[in-house]
Amino acid sequence: MITVGLVPIYKSSTHKLAQLTSRDKRVMLTPQNVAKFKDDFLEINITKNAGILSGFADQEYKESGAKIVSLAKIYSSQILLFQTAPTSNEISKFKKGQIIIGYLNSRNSNIAAQLTKKNCWGIDIELIPRMISAAQNMDVLSSQTSLAGYCAVLKAADQAKFILPMISSAAGTIKPANILILGTGIAGLQAIATAKRLGAQVTGYDIRPTSKNEVESLGAKFLDLSIKGLDKEDNGGKLNNDGYAQELSPKQIADQQKLLNNDLGKYDIVITTAKVPGKIPPKLITSNGVLNLKKGAVAIDMAASSAGGNIDGSQDGKTLITPNRAYIIGASNLESDAAKSASTLLGNNISYILKHFIKDGQFMPDFDNQVDQALVITKYTKKDNTKYS
Amino acid sequence: MITVGLVPIYKSSTHKLAQLTSRDKRVMLTPQNVAKFKDDFLEINITKNAGILSGFADQEYKESGAKIVSLAKIYSSQILLFQTAPTSNEISKFKKGQIIIGYLNSRNSNIAAQLTKKNCWGIDIELIPRMISAAQNMDVLSSQTSLAGYCAVLKAADQAKFILPMISSAAGTIKPANILILGTGIAGLQAIATAKRLGAQVTGYDIRPTSKNEVESLGAKFLDLSIKGLDKEDNGGKLNNDGYAQELSPKQIADQQKLLNNDLGKYDIVITTAKVPGKIPPKLITSNGVLNLKKGAVAIDMAASSAGGNIDGSQDGKTLITPNRAYIIGASNLESDAAKSASTLLGNNISYILKHFIKDGQFMPDFDNQVDQALVITKYTKKDNTKYS
Repeated sequence: MITVGLVPIYKSSTHKLAQLTSRDKRVMLTPQNVAKFKDDFLEINITKNAGILSGFADQEYKESGAKIVSLAKIYSSQILLFQTAPTSNEISKFKKGQIIIGYLNSRNSNIAAQLTKKNCWGIDIELIPRMISAAQNMDVLSSQTSLAGYCAVLKAADQAKFILPMISSAAGTIKPANILILGTGIAGLQAIATAKRLGAQVTGYDIRPTSKNEVESLGAKFLDLSIKGLDKEDNGGKLNNDGYAQELSPKQIADQQKLLNNDLGKYDIVITTAKVPGKIPPKLITSNGVLNLKKGAVAIDMAASSAGGNIDGSQDGKTLITPNRAYIIGASNLESDAAKSASTLLGNNISYILKHFIKDGQFMPDFDNQVDQALVITKYTKKDNTKYS
Repeated sequence: MITVGLVPIYKSSTHKLAQLTSRDKRVMLTPQNVAKFKDDFLEINITKNAGILSGFADQEYKESGAKIVSLAKIYSSQILLFQTAPTSNEISKFKKGQIIIGYLNSRNSNIAAQLTKKNCWGIDIELIPRMISAAQNMDVLSSQTSLAGYCAVLKAADQAKFILPMISSAAGTIKPANILILGTGIAGLQAIATAKRLGAQVTGYDIRPTSKNEVESLGAKFLDLSIKGLDKEDNGGKLNNDGYAQELSPKQIADQQKLLNNDLGKYDIVITTAKVPGKIPPKLITSNGVLNLKKGAVAIDMAASSAGGNIDGSQDGKTLITPNRAYIIGASNLESDAAKSASTLLGNNISYILKHFIKDGQFMPDFDNQVDQALVITKYTKKDNTKYS
C-alpha cells in the first residue's frame, strides 16, 4: 500500500474562501479515478472540499475510497500531488524520499535544486514527451489545452456584444462573426472547430508547414502571410523535438507582426494560442496591432503570462479595453472554466502517470524508459543511510 | 419634419452609472437606422451614451445625423420611443398629442388609461399581430426571442462546469452534454439549433402539434409525454390567434409536470422558454422537479418574471443553487447579452414601425389597417381645441 496526498491549491487548509475564489477550479483526481485505484494498492488522501469547484463532493470521494484528512496528514503521504509548483514553504515540509509529482515548473525555476537538497523524488508532469505514443495518455498539456481551446471561443462569445452565427429574419440579417485563430496547435484547432460549429467564419494561421491542411480540413480558411523562408524545412516552420514550432528569425518575426497588424481590423474575434512550454511566448500582435483591432472586437490571449503573451500588454486573468473599445482578455488557464470536464481528463492523465510509476504498491521508476527519463527531475539517494519512514 | 426622441432606459439623465449597469443593454435605434431616416423627414434625438452598451458610440450617431440632446429636449419630441413601460413620473411629462411608441406593457397595466388621460397616442409594439405577414418585419418579440434562444445556450455553457461537445482523447472520452429544451417556439428552436451546433445531445418538448416535426428537423429528439387530449385539435396543443400555444387543462398540467419531473434527472442542461405575452407563464417544473435536477445541472428559465416562471422558485436576473447543487438561472432578457446584434434587429423593427406610421414626415395611422388596429392602444382627440405645439 502506498499513500498519495493531493495537496490543495489554496495555501491554507483553513482558508476555504481562498479556494472558492481560486483561478484554477480543477482537481487532480476525480472520485472515478480514486475508485479505480483500489486494486493498485493506492490510498488517496484529500482535504475537505478538494473537488468542490469541479463539481465533485466530499461524499463522492468518500464513497470511492478516498480519505478526507488534515493538511498535515496530506504531507505525511508517500506521494504528494501538486497542481501548481510548490512554494518554498511547502518544500520545507517535504521529507526525505518523498515523491513529488505535479506541475513543478522545473523549466523556469530552481525547484530541481530545492528537491535535491531535500533529497526527494521530483516528477514534473509538464515534461511529458508528447511525441512518444506510450506517453500520450499521460499528456496533461494536450488534454487540458484542447478544452481550453473550446473555452476560449465560449469566453469570446460571452464577452462579445454580437452573436457568432448568421441569423436571417424578417427584420434583416446578422452576418456571421469573423474569427481569427493564431496558432493552430491543439488549442487552436479545437478553437477553430468550436467557432465553426457556432456558425462563425473562421481563419487560422500558424507557421508550421502542416498547419494549412489541418486548418482547411476543419472548413476554415488559412491565412497565408507568405513570410520568406517558412517554406524551407530548416527555417522556422520546422518542429522541435516536442512537436512545437521552432522560433522564427528576427526578420521573420518583424514581417509576421507587420502583416498580421495590417490584417487585424477585419476580425470580430481574435484568439492567440502560441505557447511553447518553458519559453517566452512569441509576440504576435504588437502595440500597433492592438490599436488596429476592430471596434468592439474581442481578443483572447491564451499565452498570457507574467513574462508576456502573444498580444502586447495582455495581462493574465484580466480584461483590458483598447482606445478603440476592443477587449483584450489574458487567459492562460481557460480549461478551468470547464472544471469538471478538465478534471476528468486531468485525473485520467494523473492516474496513468501513477500507474506508470507504481507497480504492486511500489514506486518503481525505470530509467531505461524514455518517459521516466523525461519526467524524473530529481532522485532520492539513500547514501546517507537515513531510513525513509 | 417629425422629431423622434429616444428615451433612455436609465431613469436620470445625469446618472450615467445607472445606465452602465442596466440589465437591458440594447438600444432601440442604431446609427445605421438613423442614417436611413434622412429621406423620411425624421429627426432622431438621443441622449449621451444611448448606444454605448450596445457598442454604438455617440460619434457614430452624430455622423448618421442623430442629435445628442438633453433629456428635457427628448421629451419635447413629437414621437417618444420607450424601451420599457414609462413610469408615472415619465407619463406626467407627456404633452397632449404626443406619440408614445414602445414596450408599453399595456396588457398588464393601466397605461392605456393614463395615456388617454394625457390625450396621447399610445402604440404598444408588444401587440404586433405576428400572424400577419406584413407585420413580420415589425415583430420585436420574434427578432429578440430568437437571439435570446442563442444566448440561453451560451449562458448555460458558460455556467456549466462541463463542455457541451464530445471530446475523445488519449486520456479518455467526455460524453456530449444532454440538453432539454422545454417550449419550442422561436426561442426554443434557436436554442435547439445552437446546442446541436455545439455538439450536445438535444431533446425538445412542446405541446403544439407541429412541434415534433420542427424539433426533429433540427436533428434533435422529441420528448413525447403522451399527455391525454393533446392529439386532439380542440384540447390544448392548438394555437391561439397570435400563434402561441393554448393553455392546458388542470389535469393535463398535472400530468405534464409529473412526467417531466420524472424525466429531469437525465439532463445536464434544461432551458425553459414557455412564455405567452400577457399571461402568467405555465409552471413546467415544480418544486419536486427542481429537486430532481441532476447534480451540477444548469437550468435556465427564460420565462422568469415577477409573476412566476416555468421553473418553481426561479427569480429573474438571479442564479439560485438547489440542494443538489444544480443552478437555476432566471433570465427573461437574454438577448441583451448580444446587445449589438439584438439592437441591430430591434432597430430594424422600430424603423419599419416608424415607416409604417409616418408618411412624408406626417404621422398617419390608418384604422382600416389590421396592424394599426392591433398596435394603437390610445388615440389623441382634438375635441378640446388645444393646439399641439
